[in-house]
This record gives sequence, structure tokens and C-alpha cells, in this order.
Amino acid sequence: MSATDYFANIAPVTFKGPDSEDELAYRFYDKDRVVLGKRMEDHLRFAVCFWHSFCWNGFDVFGAGTFNRPWHAGANDSAAAHAKREVAFDFFSKLDLPYYCFHDVDVMAAAETVTDYQRLFAEAVDHLEALQGQSKRKLLWGTANLFSHPRYAAGGATNPNPEVVAFGALQVRSALEATHRLGGENYVLWGGREGYETLLNTDIGRELDQLGRFLTMVVEHKHKIGFNGTILIEPKPHEPTKHQYDFDTATVYGFLKRYGLENEVKVNIEANHATLARHTFEHEIATARALGLFGSIDANRGDDQNGWDTDQFPNSVEEMTLAMVEILRAGGFTTGGFNFDAKVRRQSIDAVDMVHGHVGAVDVIARALLAAAAIIEDGRIDAARAERYAGWDGEIGRAITGEGASLAAIADLAVAHDIAPAHVSGHQERLENLINRFVYSAR
Amino acid sequence: MSATDYFANIAPVTFKGPDSEDELAYRFYDKDRVVLGKRMEDHLRFAVCFWHSFCWNGFDVFGAGTFNRPWHAGANDSAAAHAKREVAFDFFSKLDLPYYCFHDVDVMAAAETVTDYQRLFAEAVDHLEALQGQSKRKLLWGTANLFSHPRYAAGGATNPNPEVVAFGALQVRSALEATHRLGGENYVLWGGREGYETLLNTDIGRELDQLGRFLTMVVEHKHKIGFNGTILIEPKPHEPTKHQYDFDTATVYGFLKRYGLENEVKVNIEANHATLARHTFEHEIATARALGLFGSIDANRGDDQNGWDTDQFPNSVEEMTLAMVEILRAGGFTTGGFNFDAKVRRQSIDAVDMVHGHVGAVDVIARALLAAAAIIEDGRIDAARAERYAGWDGEIGRAITGEGASLAAIADLAVAHDIAPAHVSGHQERLENLINRFVYSAR
Amino acid sequence: MSATDYFANIAPVTFKGPDSEDELAYRFYDKDRVVLGKRMEDHLRFAVCFWHSFCWNGFDVFGAGTFNRPWHAGANDSAAAHAKREVAFDFFSKLDLPYYCFHDVDVMAAAETVTDYQRLFAEAVDHLEALQGQSKRKLLWGTANLFSHPRYAAGGATNPNPEVVAFGALQVRSALEATHRLGGENYVLWGGREGYETLLNTDIGRELDQLGRFLTMVVEHKHKIGFNGTILIEPKPHEPTKHQYDFDTATVYGFLKRYGLENEVKVNIEANHATLARHTFEHEIATARALGLFGSIDANRGDDQNGWDTDQFPNSVEEMTLAMVEILRAGGFTTGGFNFDAKVRRQSIDAVDMVHGHVGAVDVIARALLAAAAIIEDGRIDAARAERYAGWDGEIGRAITGEGASLAAIADLAVAHDIAPAHVSGHQERLENLINRFVYSAR
Amino acid sequence: MSATDYFANIAPVTFKGPDSEDELAYRFYDKDRVVLGKRMEDHLRFAVCFWHSFCWNGFDVFGAGTFNRPWHAGANDSAAAHAKREVAFDFFSKLDLPYYCFHDVDVMAAAETVTDYQRLFAEAVDHLEALQGQSKRKLLWGTANLFSHPRYAAGGATNPNPEVVAFGALQVRSALEATHRLGGENYVLWGGREGYETLLNTDIGRELDQLGRFLTMVVEHKHKIGFNGTILIEPKPHEPTKHQYDFDTATVYGFLKRYGLENEVKVNIEANHATLARHTFEHEIATARALGLFGSIDANRGDDQNGWDTDQFPNSVEEMTLAMVEILRAGGFTTGGFNFDAKVRRQSIDAVDMVHGHVGAVDVIARALLAAAAIIEDGRIDAARAERYAGWDGEIGRAITGEGASLAAIADLAVAHDIAPAHVSGHQERLENLINRFVYSAR
Repeated sequence: MSATDYFANIAPVTFKGPDSEDELAYRFYDKDRVVLGKRMEDHLRFAVCFWHSFCWNGFDVFGAGTFNRPWHAGANDSAAAHAKREVAFDFFSKLDLPYYCFHDVDVMAAAETVTDYQRLFAEAVDHLEALQGQSKRKLLWGTANLFSHPRYAAGGATNPNPEVVAFGALQVRSALEATHRLGGENYVLWGGREGYETLLNTDIGRELDQLGRFLTMVVEHKHKIGFNGTILIEPKPHEPTKHQYDFDTATVYGFLKRYGLENEVKVNIEANHATLARHTFEHEIATARALGLFGSIDANRGDDQNGWDTDQFPNSVEEMTLAMVEILRAGGFTTGGFNFDAKVRRQSIDAVDMVHGHVGAVDVIARALLAAAAIIEDGRIDAARAERYAGWDGEIGRAITGEGASLAAIADLAVAHDIAPAHVSGHQERLENLINRFVYSAR
Repeated sequence: MSATDYFANIAPVTFKGPDSEDELAYRFYDKDRVVLGKRMEDHLRFAVCFWHSFCWNGFDVFGAGTFNRPWHAGANDSAAAHAKREVAFDFFSKLDLPYYCFHDVDVMAAAETVTDYQRLFAEAVDHLEALQGQSKRKLLWGTANLFSHPRYAAGGATNPNPEVVAFGALQVRSALEATHRLGGENYVLWGGREGYETLLNTDIGRELDQLGRFLTMVVEHKHKIGFNGTILIEPKPHEPTKHQYDFDTATVYGFLKRYGLENEVKVNIEANHATLARHTFEHEIATARALGLFGSIDANRGDDQNGWDTDQFPNSVEEMTLAMVEILRAGGFTTGGFNFDAKVRRQSIDAVDMVHGHVGAVDVIARALLAAAAIIEDGRIDAARAERYAGWDGEIGRAITGEGASLAAIADLAVAHDIAPAHVSGHQERLENLINRFVYSAR
Repeated sequence: MSATDYFANIAPVTFKGPDSEDELAYRFYDKDRVVLGKRMEDHLRFAVCFWHSFCWNGFDVFGAGTFNRPWHAGANDSAAAHAKREVAFDFFSKLDLPYYCFHDVDVMAAAETVTDYQRLFAEAVDHLEALQGQSKRKLLWGTANLFSHPRYAAGGATNPNPEVVAFGALQVRSALEATHRLGGENYVLWGGREGYETLLNTDIGRELDQLGRFLTMVVEHKHKIGFNGTILIEPKPHEPTKHQYDFDTATVYGFLKRYGLENEVKVNIEANHATLARHTFEHEIATARALGLFGSIDANRGDDQNGWDTDQFPNSVEEMTLAMVEILRAGGFTTGGFNFDAKVRRQSIDAVDMVHGHVGAVDVIARALLAAAAIIEDGRIDAARAERYAGWDGEIGRAITGEGASLAAIADLAVAHDIAPAHVSGHQERLENLINRFVYSAR
Repeated sequence: MSATDYFANIAPVTFKGPDSEDELAYRFYDKDRVVLGKRMEDHLRFAVCFWHSFCWNGFDVFGAGTFNRPWHAGANDSAAAHAKREVAFDFFSKLDLPYYCFHDVDVMAAAETVTDYQRLFAEAVDHLEALQGQSKRKLLWGTANLFSHPRYAAGGATNPNPEVVAFGALQVRSALEATHRLGGENYVLWGGREGYETLLNTDIGRELDQLGRFLTMVVEHKHKIGFNGTILIEPKPHEPTKHQYDFDTATVYGFLKRYGLENEVKVNIEANHATLARHTFEHEIATARALGLFGSIDANRGDDQNGWDTDQFPNSVEEMTLAMVEILRAGGFTTGGFNFDAKVRRQSIDAVDMVHGHVGAVDVIARALLAAAAIIEDGRIDAARAERYAGWDGEIGRAITGEGASLAAIADLAVAHDIAPAHVSGHQERLENLINRFVYSAR
């Protein structure tokens, strides 16, 4: 079988409505349906990723690849890379999702030298441009892989060896410029090995400065080349390193403030990374919103019993609805979108499994959008929240927030009023029930 | 038995050397011994806390108090509070540790109203001042408890009700001024319920602003009253709330930067809070050092199999040595110290158990200081670390760090040199062995 | 306000259908609706618990009680206990749920001596019997609390002090006989402090033998008094002790086998305990089913980011559906049922919050029952599972399972056939999508 | 460089005493030193493993191999396998450790068919036998790898496809017979993929029966061929599967009891697997001892902040001492030993790093043996423990443990004595301090 025939037996996936018995149709993702004044496709801006779906061969730490994709046979040479790009775009089109994402090394033949890297990546980008044109698919974001090659064993931008940093600079420049050329709407930096294995050989302050300088140069280069997309950092707490510098959104915020980049960079939040950092997915979104950093989403889910990044396709409407409420409160996506940073299980070796993975996830998110929209339109949750803070319009509230307030003045006010404030119910159970009402009635 | 007789049978704890068979003597903590040019007592600045050792009665969520301390019999009235203060200072003196720490409510009779609060706390502070004079003990830090009273069920500074914030302001003013009067060297804010139970009724951005404003007022008040001590925030990720705002040191850094307080406030790092946030203890210290926030330590340990704050006495020289290396690298304590935020187990009901808890912990830390000092004097760890970064003195390193460096220039340099950097060993196993060498030979 | 007026303003909760806008009505729990041939009430056998809802006052480790229930004012004397029983039964009736559960100490005045214990518990049981008659509520299970009183600090049946074990025997005999008299359908043993704090002072083998002997005596006593209900053990991995002996269902199975009790005792599985042991809720049910131990359910949920027992009301239909599928596969409940071992949040201080907690949870479980029934009736999940094992009907399968099979014979067969078995897809993504289909369409 | 020259520059590792400055010498492992009446070598029975040290090339899920071992260049053919065996035995001899361990596939060229498997494995075993003779190294245990080849994606013995089970039977027969021929002292089964990814396609009961039958056949074959070594199961809770059947020691005990194998099989306990199951390492040993299952140890350590199997070399004397106390209490090893199931970090690419890893670990364990022996000789810990249970020699204790005891009789005794047992201190802090005393004074 030719690589490009791989999905030949898969029919294009279309919307067939909630009652459809077709397991490979969208039941909730109706791309032209208008929700809160915007088309579903424009709300959700789905992207399919290259790495999990087209580069991973099903290996794990305890066993060899299981997938037997035809484009993985033989060496990762130009022909194989070409076939991979062809089959990927065929898949994107079959799913009728508007965007895709890639790392430089995902789409190209293997390169060891700077020269080879430049030549082979350029070849890949030419082809991607052609494929975008033919397929009408768009690039949500590009990125450079600064963690898989052995040279990056001790990190990319934070590597103790400046030559490695320089190689990383080359890759990032190439990937950023390719993203720009391909009309990408964002550029992502995931700090795969930007962290440490042991503090015994690591100078955290020095490495943070390296990372700050590197990111500053990326931002400057973006402006220099006229790229209008958003630069995104993707937080993750651990893995592959013992400890990653971009631990979570709050940590990234502090880092950006330290290097004066808080208005230049936003976050790409991954659900599974959030939970590994002991936050909920919605916490990370709400935090990003509060700190002005909300950018994009890597949609997947983890396994609450397993302590590593399982990158499963999202399948909980309940969890996704809570996330979607925060996304809508943040005003929805501008340049960002939902990229499926998710992989089918190692045992799911059939072509159709990839379709099931994406179709189910798309529908979970579409359904969550409907539920979240209903929650916001209903207004009871927002009203209950506003009611809790209503006291700030009173005398003491205004005194605290007013010009020139001081600890002494507030304390004196407490004494003067001999206050004995009573606690009131937060009505958490009622609010949780209200959420469920919409999660389960949305259609 | 009178409360103040509680430790009558406990002899003063003194240094008797490594070979002493006395289980209630210090074997490593020799306060006048000079290590790296400083007396051990001045390095370690140990403090005993009021709350765990004199306020907690041994209750937990599943059962009643077990300790039967005489000063807990009857109501928490002025007489009981007086007895508690007396017995605590007797204990501090028995241990011959230089400092203590307290929350306002730890040292006073229970108060419901503003008026009662002011009267009863003033009474307590007068007594503390007298006891300090008699016993020659000093105050490492004071703090206000804005989490135990039901009024704080939804938080202190971040409470949705401004009247609660005002009550908190009264307490903090009182506790800060008392700390100043008592010669305290720091003032701590632990955000006990500064966090949320559910995002459904919570506006994170609004509550962060409340917290920022509150902290700003505290800093201003400190300056107004001429308090020269350090204001400290104590990070904790979870518990009692589902999610705390001061999650970890990196989060606190971002928060301080957001409100312009990064030069005014430092962190009080607790070992068990670090591990609950999925950091090592030494990571939090190293991070604080890198970000310029290192202040003080709440010494204890958690249980790696239990997911809550167990607040056990530290007993690992291995872990403490790694922390101590970072503390020494940070220059050691200025106003901070080691406060034992630790409690004997609920079954450890005897007076002597409190002594065992403190004596063992003091010696673990003293021994860790000796090991850390030996590691630093030996220099092999530092040399290996420096060697990893040596390349930054070369051409490419200087190019990256130099004025006017750009992504393009660095990438061009990579091309020009056709670089193919090799990875080198980080020698982690060797460095870990070296640490053990000193951990086990220190005496 | 009198304690028994506490729910006066709460109207009886009734079924009003999925589209009802009444936040305090059942929308899915229609007790007489027949699902898979059985009334919903008979499927689900809901019980309300005494401890969380009527004994807990809202305290936690970091703060005092917040609830101000009138029956908690003053001492826990006979009058208070009487009021508590009255108000609890009023609540049970308002919810129209058929069962309740209690610990001995939940329903009685505080007792210090054996004599007081017997007198006060007898008084309580008389009253419970009368209340059951008046209200037509039934007892799902009773239990004895061998963990809250300080005497149990080092355990109940596993206490190193045999006098404590004897006191426990007295309580268990009393509670078991009371359960029998009240027509209870099960008797539960939760090993609150049956575990250890440190191995340094603990002999695991000895304590397991104590526990085995104690349980054997309980089983013998059950038969002696003619109690036909089921004896249930409730697994939990940690908390309040560092490590509990009844860690999870598989551990309990081994324990029962060791003492020859595997046909006498079943498990009461709690969702939050399952997840603290790093199992899913449905794993524990499936394991209990496979091992012949499935008994009853303590319905609640934990918090995946918090490492302690949060005992929240269940609110995930997705998770509950997976559990319900396993329950239906296990044949449903016989003597067991769904007991709400759940508590409203500490901030949820209003009477109505208790209603919201229970109503939402009842509906989540009812809805999960509908979804699970639809999944089983549909049959695709079961068919896909059966298909995976179909090969066992072939030659090699029969050879392995047949009489007299040996490793050598099977290996020889592999050689003879020169087998090279190919792996096939497990189709996990498809199956997960199928589950969602029913979770979201059930009405 | 030839593969067999790889360690040419490494001098044989010898004991040089605690004060040696040689970083590649043993400072505490003095093989002939007698401790508690036995030579250190005979106590500890160290083994080096093939897989981590000679098969793994440094790859992880996020990046390619980093080690560049010469024997990994090219295909895994007979020549490469031969070189690997040679270099491994050279390393074993350099370390002067008495044992090694291997999986079938570790030591042989890659095989796809049954025929190839048999031929290539036989070739390897012949060579191993010769190498053992030349080097005087012995086999601690052998095992078969039923998890790495794609055919085992859904498990080995628990695979839904009986042909895969048959292939597994062939491998296990071969590996067991080879172990017997090579004089191996144990045979291990680690259930790499004996577990599930999703309950939706899994029948736990059926798969447990498959596993029980398979293990029964292994035990029968062992007896048939006259193998006198011990069959060992190695528990692990998760990874690579979502959930493993051999979760922990207590689970394995129940499994063995279910299939009547509790007198035939013991456990091989791995430190990192223990902690992933939320047990301490010493808990698993103590449990194995209490249940009569203690067999052997896979020595390594995990990372408390990382949720996956990091398999690092042990480096905590503190933790290892607690484990060693339990091992000594269990009577020490019979056929088992300490196998280093540990790998150098991915960045530790030098030959010398492998030596550092092993030397440090050997010394940590040797030092722990000295500390544990001192603890046992001192006797205070054991005495304190015995004292806690002393009451069982009294009237009530004897009544409970005596013939014919009943719940009613014990409860009546409680009434008759009007008992009011007081709780006593467990003195945990004292005992922890005592442990430290010996951990730090052992030399």
C-alpha cells in the first residue's frame, strides 16, 4: 500500500446530527452553526498535530512501535517525509478541520548538520505550502523541536553549551520564518528539556537568564520579519526533565515579567500538563485570563491515576465545559485554537482508530461549547458569583479600594464599626448542579 | 499539675557531643561552634512555634484531641492563655533555642469582637514582652491568623466580603505592631484560606487584586511604623482550600512583580509545602535565591505517600543537606531562620515527645550544616557545575550574551561554523556520590 | 429555632422530570420508573448518612466549625442527641430516600465509660426504631466508630492494647445487635485507625492477626444472633493513619483469604478511597466483582488535585456511568446500596445546601443508571469485548485451558505451528466514544 | 573501539575503606567483612542487570538514544549480541559483584519467529555459560521479556489472543530452562503488560484466570525440570499499562492464594514500584515478610516529584536502612539478593558514569547493612516495639487470643471490668531519632 492510500477507505467526516448512528460522523460539531454570534468553526479553530498522529510509531519506554504506518518503513529520508506530509494533509481534509500544527523535524527528513537541516527543512516547507493551497488547510502554529536530538540532552536554550543554544537559534529562526511564510497564526515554544535533572550540576538563575535572553531574541525576530502571529509558551511541570522551568501559567507569568515580555508572549495551555502540575485545566485558563496571557489550547486529557503525560484524546464534556466557560469569559480565541496534542493508544493501530480519536474529541469540545454558551446565556452562575462580591460597593469596600487607603485606616474603620462579619454560604453544591443541568441538556 | 510544671521533669537540653548516649542531648548542635566563620546558633537561628506545640490538642479530622495538656482544660480564657505563654517560654528555655514564632490567636484568649480582640491581644503582648526579658528568648516572626475563625471561611484578604477584609486588616495591624514592639525580625503572611474551593463562585483576577492591595498596605504600614524586619509570604499549593493563590515560590514571584512588591517581600519556604507542590525543598530555596526572594524557612517534613500537610519534624540529613547547600549559596539567613513548623504525632502525647521531636530535628539540621559546609569547602561540586558552563566564555557564548545579539546573528554563526555540538555527560551519579560522602562523614 | 424546625422551609423533594426548572426537584430520579426490569428505587437503594450531614459541624484542621446547626449548640448530651435524630429523620423523609446509615456514636450522647456507653446507645436505638416506624425509612447499614475517641489513637481491633480491643468488641457487639434489631441490611467495618503511623513501633503480622481474629469473631457473632445482613469491609489506603491495612479491594481479598473469610465478608467501596489508592472507582467495583466481593457503595467523589479524602457529593455522570456499568455487570445490589458518604463544603452553611448536595447527587446517579442500562441494552461494548477473547475457542486456546495443559505442551504447540501472532487494535477510542453517546443521550 | 574495550580504562573496583579519596573504590562494601555472623557479600548478594546497563541506549519518549555504546551500532544481530555479552561480563568482573540478571531478549539477537527465537537464544545461553565459567560470576535470576515486542501490546499471559500466550509460554519455558542450566537461583516474572489500558475492552476476571493458569504451569514446569530456585513475581502498580494486575505485594498475595500458589511463589520487590503504589519500600518488605512472601529486591529509587518509574540508582542510606532492618527481620535473603534495576541518567553517557552509579549504590546498601545491624544489636527499637504489645500477656489479652473466644465474651469482659483504657505514647519521634543515631554512626 502506498502511504497516501492509507486513509482511502475512510469517508470524509461530516456533520450528521445528534441522532446519527454513524460512528464516524460529527454529531455535535456543525461548523456553520452559530453559537453566541459566531460560527462553531470560528469558535473552536481545531488543529490536527503532526507529531502524535504521523511521526510516533507506537513505541513506548517498554516496547517497540506497533503502528506499522507505511511511511515509517525505511529511513526517515526525503521520500518518507514527502509521503508523511501527503498522508497527513489527506487526513486533515478527511476530518474537515481547518488547521494543523507541526515541529520542524516532524515534517522533514532527518538531518545531522546545519547544512542538511536547512536544505531538508526548506524542501519540506515548500511542500507544505503547496499542500495548504491544494487542501485549503491552514497553519495554527509551527514550532521547533529542541529536545529530541541527543545534542539537546541538557536542554535547548538553557543548555550549558552555547553551541547547542546556537543550533537551537538556527532551528527556531527557520521554524519561525517558515511559520510566517505559511501564514501560521502563532508560534509555540515548548520547553521540552528546558529544566534540569539535578540541581547538583545546574545553575537555575543562569539558565533562566539564558531562557529570557533567547525568548527576547525570538520576540525581536518576530517583529523584524513582520510576523503578526502570537508567540506562545507551553507550560509543563515535569517530564522529560525532573523539573521544567515553564512549570505552569503562574510561573510563566513571573518569568515573562522578569524579562519584560509579559505583553509579547502568551500561553498555550495543555490539559494534561495542567493536571500534572496539580491544577485543573480550567484553573490554568482562568489564571491565564486573569494575568492577560490566554493564548491557545493543546487539547488532550491525562489519566488521573498515572503520573505521566498520557496525551489521550479529550472525552469528558463535563471537564471541557468548565474549561470552555473560562475560554468564553476570556473572550474566546483570537489567534489561538484547539490543537489536538493527543495520540491514539499504542494498541489502537488501525487507520480508523485515528478517526475515532479525532471525531470523538471534536464532538466532546463542540458539545462543551454548546453547554458553556447555555450557561453564560442563562446567567445564574455569573449572577451568583457577582452577588458574592456585592459588598464591595458598600462603605467599607469602597474605603479599601479607594485612593489613599491604608492598613491603619481600614483597621480603624473596623474598630469604629465594631464589625463582626458573619460568613455566608458559597452555595457550591447548587452551582455544581447548575453546571450539570447544562452539560446534559445541551444539544 | 499546674501548667507551668509541665516540663518540670525535663532537664535543660545541652550539647554533649556525637558520642553521647543521652537521648535528650544535642549531639551535633553546638551553638558556639564556628562553621564557615559563623557560630552555629547564628547560622541556624532556630525558632520554636506556638501553634503546633502549645495550641494543638492532638485532634484530627477523624478524632478528638489526645494530648490532655493542662492548659487546654477549660475555656480558652485569659488564665489559660497566660498559662500557655508561661509553659511555652519554659519549653523554649529548656531547649536553649534562641527564637520563637506565634500567630496572634495562639497567644491570647478567644475573642469574638473587635473590642475583645484588641484588649485580649494587648494583654498577651505585654506578657510576651515580659517573658522575653526574663528568658532572653527572641521573636523570629509574628503573624496573624486569618483562617481559623469561621468569619474567614472564604478567605482573609481575598474574602468576597470587605468587612472580613477589614477585620483581617485590624488583626494584621495589631500583629505587625506587636511584632515590631517585641523586636521581631520578620513578619509572615501565610495565606491559609487565600485561595478558592470552586472557580464557579470565584473571580481569580479580582481576588488577586484584593491580595495585592492588602499586601501593599501591609508594606506601607511596615515603613510607617519603622519596622525594619522582613515581610515574608509563605507559599503553599493546596489545603485547606482546594487551590491556594501563593502556590509556590515562582507563583509568589509573579504575584509580587505584578504588584510592584518584589523588592519588599521575601518568602518563608516550608519543606512540606514544597513537596506538596511537587518541588523538592531545595528547588524552592534555589528558586527563591535565583529570584532574589530567599527569606526564611519553616522546617518540617511531609510524608511522600500521604497527600496532605503532615508537618512532621525533619529527620533526613540527606534532604536537609541539599537544602542547606542552597541556603549557604544564598548567603545564609539575614533576618530569617529555621522555625519548626512541625508537630509531634497525635499518639506522641508525652511531654518528653515534644523534646524528642525538637532535639532530633535540631541535630538533623546541625549535621546538615556541617555536611553542607564540607561540600562547599571541598569545592568539587561547585567546580563540576562551573565546568559545565565554561563554554560561555568562548566565541559563540560571548556572541549570545553580548550587546546587540540577535536570533539571526546567532543562527548565522551556527551556519558559518557548521556546528554540530556533541552532548557531554552531566555526571549526575558522581555528584550524588560526592554529596553522600560528606553527608556521612560530617561530625 | 428548634432543631427539628431546621428544614421547615424545605419542601419535600419530588420527581418533576428532566425539564423542570425547580432546582430542588429530582429531574432524573423517578423512583417508580422501571429500568432493566427493576424500579429505580430498588436499583439504587439510596441512603443518607448521619455523620457528615448531622454530626460534622464544619470544622477542619485549620479552622473551627462553621455550620451553627442548632443541635450542635451545647454539650453532646441526651437532649442534643435526641434533637439530632429527629432532625435527621425529618431530612431523610424530605428527600424521600429509602435508607439511612449511622455509626453508634453518631446517634448518641457522648459516653466515656462502658456503662454510659451501653445506656446511652440503648436510648438512641429505641428512638431510632420509633423514628423508622414513623417515617418508613430503613437502615442500610450500621457501624461502630472505633477511631474518634482518644482511646483508639493507635487503632481499634489492631490496637497494641488488648483493653482497647475489648472496648471495641463491646461497641461492635452493640452496633451489630442494634443493626440487627433495626432491620439493617448490612453491617460495615471501616478501619479508621487500623493501620500504622510508623513501622518502627508496629508489628504488621501481629496486627493483621488481631484484625483477622476480630473479624472472625464478628462473623461468628452475626451468625449466632441470626443476622442475615452482609458484613462489609470498607477499603481505604491512607488517612487518618499513614497506611491503612484495608488498602483497597485486592488487599482486602487477600486478607479475607488468609483468615478464611472470603465467603463471609464483602466490600463497601468508596469512590474517593478508590482514587486515593490510585485506582478508578470502576476498577474497584470490577475487581470486587471478579473476586466475588461486591457488596455496597459509599457514593462520593474526591478532588484529583487534592491528596486527602474530600468526600464531596458525586457530580460526574461520566464517571458514575462507568461505575454503574460494572455494578449492573455484577448483577446490581443485593443487600447493598448507594450511601452518600459525602459532605457539603465547609462554606455551604445553609440548610438548603444539604438539599442541593443530595438532590444533585441522586440525579447524577439516576442519570448514570439510565446511561448504563442503555449501554448494556445496546450491546456494542459487550460485543467488542467478547470479540477480543474469541480466539480462546480455537485450538490453541482450548489447549491452554484444557485439562492437563502444561507449559511444555503449549510451547511445543507454538513451535509446531511456527506461530507469529499479530497484534490487533483494542479500539479504545471507539469504545470511549460509544460510552459518551449514551452518557449524553440518556434521559 | 571494540565493544569489549569499552571499560578498558576502568580499573577493577576494590574496597579501600571509608576514608579513601578514590571516587571509584568501595568505601563501605568490604565483601569479606562479617556482619551479624555473615560475610557482607553473602548478606547482600549483589547483581548487575543486563537491560538498563547494556541494552538501553539512552532514548526516552521525547528523544533518541544518547549513549553511543559501540555494541549498539548496527543491527541487533548475533555479532552485536555477542559483543554485548562480552562487555557485560567484563563490567561485572570489574565491579567484583557476584551476580547478574537478564531477560531472554537482552542477551540475544532479535528474533521474529519461533524458530529464530530458539536458535538465537540457545546461542546466547551457550555463551553465557562460558562467560560465567571464565569470570566466576553467577546468575541471580533469569526472566523472559513478554512486553517489548509488538505481539505483546495487549499483554503476555493475559493477552486476549491465546496464540500470544503460547508464544509467551515458549519464551518462559526457554528462559526458565536456561536459568536452570546456568545455575540461576531464582526465576522472575514481571508483568510488564499484564494489566489493562481500559476496562471497556477488558474482562478482569478472565485475565486473572489466564494469569493464574499460566503461573501454575510455570510452577509445575519448574518442578518437572528439577529447578530448585525460587519463582518470583515483581509487583508494579502502573506503567506501561494504565493498571497492572500485580499492583503490590498485598495484591500478589491475594492472587497467589486465589490460585493456591502462596507456597510456591515469592515477591521480587522494587523500591520504585513500591513508591509508585504509594507504599514505602520498607512497607512492601515488611508486608512480604508478614505474608511469607519475601524473596528478592530490585534495588533502585524513584523520584518523589515524578510520577513514573525513574529507576535511579539508590543513594539514600536513610531509606535503605529502614528497608534493611526489615530484610534482616525477615531473616535476610535465601535465594534472593539485591539486583540493580537501575539506570544511569540519559545525560550520563560516559563509561565511568556506569561505574559511579554502581559503586555509589553498592556503598549505600553496604552502609545501610551496617546501620541496620547496629540497630538490631542495640535492641532499643525492638524493645520499644515489644513493650507496646506487652498487654497481650494479661488477662484480657489472653482472653481475646485464647481458644473459644467470642465477641460476646470479650464484650462482657469489658463490661465486667468497666474498662476505660487510656492511650499511651507511641514515641515515634524518639524512635526516629534512634534510627538516625545508627544511620550516621555506622562505619
